[in-house]
Amino acid sequence: MTAPRIAHLGIAVTDLDAAAGTWRTLLGTAPHDRETVDSQGVEVVHFSTGESMIELLQATRPESAIAKFIAKRGEGIHHVAVWVDDLRAELARLSAEGVELVDKAPRIGAGGHLVAFVHPKSTRGVLVELTQRAPAPEGDAPR
Amino acid sequence: MTAPRIAHLGIAVTDLDAAAGTWRTLLGTAPHDRETVDSQGVEVVHFSTGESMIELLQATRPESAIAKFIAKRGEGIHHVAVWVDDLRAELARLSAEGVELVDKAPRIGAGGHLVAFVHPKSTRGVLVELTQRAPAPEGDAPR
Repeated sequence: MTAPRIAHLGIAVTDLDAAAGTWRTLLGTAPHDRETVDSQGVEVVHFSTGESMIELLQATRPESAIAKFIAKRGEGIHHVAVWVDDLRAELARLSAEGVELVDKAPRIGAGGHLVAFVHPKSTRGVLVELTQRAPAPEGDAPR
Repeated sequence: MTAPRIAHLGIAVTDLDAAAGTWRTLLGTAPHDRETVDSQGVEVVHFSTGESMIELLQATRPESAIAKFIAKRGEGIHHVAVWVDDLRAELARLSAEGVELVDKAPRIGAGGHLVAFVHPKSTRGVLVELTQRAPAPEGDAPR
């Protein structure tokens, strides 16, 4: 297994434009992209931070996990995503180690990457996303 | 200004050994180092994640910010740290932009790096640490 890498840090926000402005000021750089992920009920803005990204998430419907998180805890850091080479193998390994999973099988997340969440019960309150890179679209440099 | 980089993700925990075991399982890798930072009342364990690190923080005294955070919100992600080239210049820039700062001047943090925190009021609930690399391993600690 290669060394782990943080893919992104997910931050729940109520106003994506305002939050993007805040992070533009903080980081001194413009956002990298903006995307709606219908399957997860979110619209996201990414800021590149070297190998990783800051991901701002705004709910697009009230039953979105982001809407529920904000209703309960307010805006703030929602999850950390870690790259894995083989998501199915990682889910099997963690399950065998007794780690509770939110997703027992990979789903499609932002950027078309495969994603699965580990349950915060097994991580002392941290929502951890495991993510495997989508096959690169033709002509795209891997990142 | 160079592109921003995440230095580490700080996670507040009540039991550093147990949390280190949890993250060892999650990441499939051993911790990188362990350090006590008396000035901040914390003991920390780092896991290398490429350019960045996962930093587990346990309070060493009840008045530590980590102890207060856990009493209020429970264990979980506490802050995100971002590298800057010139911390004093960044603090001046952010202050001029109307960003509220916890630390108006740099302090010495883990690894001897210069650190300063931005107030979560100005970041929509996210505690952001700005950090500048320590110049030399044996450099003394200016105040």
